[in-house]
Amino acid sequence: MKPFQQYLDTVNQAIAAIPYPEQPSQLYAPIAYHMALGGKRVRPVLLLMACDAMGGDCNAAIDAAVGLEMFHNFTLLHDDVMDNADVRRGKPTVHHRWNDNTAILSGDTMLTIATQYITRTANWQVMDLFNKTAIEIYEGQQWDMDFENRNDVTADEYINMIRLKTSVLLGCALKMGALIAKADDEQANLLYEAGVNMGLAFQLRDDVLDVWGDPKTFGKEIGGDIMNNKKTYLLINAMQLAQGDDADELRHWLNDPYTIRDEKVPAVTALYERLGVRQLAEDAITHYNNLAITAFNQIVMTDDDKDAFVALANRLSGRKY
Amino acid sequence: MKPFQQYLDTVNQAIAAIPYPEQPSQLYAPIAYHMALGGKRVRPVLLLMACDAMGGDCNAAIDAAVGLEMFHNFTLLHDDVMDNADVRRGKPTVHHRWNDNTAILSGDTMLTIATQYITRTANWQVMDLFNKTAIEIYEGQQWDMDFENRNDVTADEYINMIRLKTSVLLGCALKMGALIAKADDEQANLLYEAGVNMGLAFQLRDDVLDVWGDPKTFGKEIGGDIMNNKKTYLLINAMQLAQGDDADELRHWLNDPYTIRDEKVPAVTALYERLGVRQLAEDAITHYNNLAITAFNQIVMTDDDKDAFVALANRLSGRKY
Repeated sequence: MKPFQQYLDTVNQAIAAIPYPEQPSQLYAPIAYHMALGGKRVRPVLLLMACDAMGGDCNAAIDAAVGLEMFHNFTLLHDDVMDNADVRRGKPTVHHRWNDNTAILSGDTMLTIATQYITRTANWQVMDLFNKTAIEIYEGQQWDMDFENRNDVTADEYINMIRLKTSVLLGCALKMGALIAKADDEQANLLYEAGVNMGLAFQLRDDVLDVWGDPKTFGKEIGGDIMNNKKTYLLINAMQLAQGDDADELRHWLNDPYTIRDEKVPAVTALYERLGVRQLAEDAITHYNNLAITAFNQIVMTDDDKDAFVALANRLSGRKY
Repeated sequence: MKPFQQYLDTVNQAIAAIPYPEQPSQLYAPIAYHMALGGKRVRPVLLLMACDAMGGDCNAAIDAAVGLEMFHNFTLLHDDVMDNADVRRGKPTVHHRWNDNTAILSGDTMLTIATQYITRTANWQVMDLFNKTAIEIYEGQQWDMDFENRNDVTADEYINMIRLKTSVLLGCALKMGALIAKADDEQANLLYEAGVNMGLAFQLRDDVLDVWGDPKTFGKEIGGDIMNNKKTYLLINAMQLAQGDDADELRHWLNDPYTIRDEKVPAVTALYERLGVRQLAEDAITHYNNLAITAFNQIVMTDDDKDAFVALANRLSGRKY
């Protein structure tokens, strides 16, 4: 297997080479803008890595890799409208720089462009996997929005939500690479399982970093989830565990409409520490990361390839922060 | 070929039988609601008619028919958000009954469900046609939005916009039926051409009916386009033809922010009559309807089948109103 950076270069070159029509410019300029914002490109890189590890030809997988990254960016465009988010990767979001209608319509276009790239693989299993995964991601986004209006969300429900909203796309990326390499079903499904568990650890790490991350490297302002009362793994467990004064304090911070950031974020952070939910999150991350590593180790591939996947899983589950 | 009503029954049964998951209900209930609103189901019926006329098996075309109708309904859901429209087919739109976010996410889901139905045809030509048509429809919608901010739109630009936004989907429906029936490229392309021209006549008739339609049968309030200064074929030609007092009067109605419906609609209607743009629209409808009929007549099929298509073209171009 090649180094991560080499796959990333391949992906970035392919994305930079996407031939957008010139007109109507209000439709295509936002797409080109958003695709050029960068990001980790985790999904397309995973797809190429899996294809390589399963003995496939990476050149045959590049269209699918671009398609998945285009799809992922489409979900971000529409999520930013739904969340009314103004900043993404340090730049104005499409709905903020243009407007909601542009973000909706350019997003729709990205979904169909993504489907065109996936279609080029001329592989019905790949098409079916792509469509099924897309549906699961919409379901995850819907659960996420439903949870905003509920105070009885359980940790299990939360895990299922992030599995749908975030993790299945990582599983899909790995399995798609395997399918394009014509790996057998068992290998493809183990890669899927590894990807989903890796995705769960990755999203839970995101919840933790939002509270305890390094502001210099995190990319977003620390405490955003706390300020928005976002039902993360931390808050859901805290709501379940808090008793007496802790419960009163948590209720206060969740309901106070005049909250000052410099008061609320440190107070809720301290509450999380006191209630032990930081440790619960770390334990869950370790659990899902271990499941991912176990799955990778069951797959028939070279030890070097296994090491590369395990290293990536450890990196995404974010041991260092 | 069977009677129109029989195809319509087949389509409506297939749509009623779509198995939506129960959860998350906020995602799927709006989809089921919108698909049950009804409508003419022109696209899926055209698809089945074309498949039958080309000697294909209609049972093999039903998935594609449902997919196209689902796709069409997805575009309506998102258009209603973009246009802030509250009523569709006499019922509250999804964004009005639920909210914008629901309409966006349920719409996304409908696009992927549509793609799943199209994927089931296991025909790459059908997939490619579907994706290409979808892109053209987004481009048409973008041009339509761009035109709102321009006063120099030409009649040719308008025709191109409605070709993309409305007509190519009718061409796509007919061609898809032909492809599923394994008709040769020449027949499939003639059906496409017939469908596009039929679609142009159909949309131009819609512009005319918005002004001179029968309120009892039109389904929308008469004069909506006039009240919204919508750049229809009528307004674009009127802006180009009006001179002197007529130009001043038209400018007045376009710019007056305190317009009373009962004054503006009759006045602009009279202006359209005086400037002869009603006749221009009728001439254009006849022109495109004739092109559609000519294409149908070139296709290798029974005379009965030709008659059925010509009768439908005449009905859609709306000789009676």
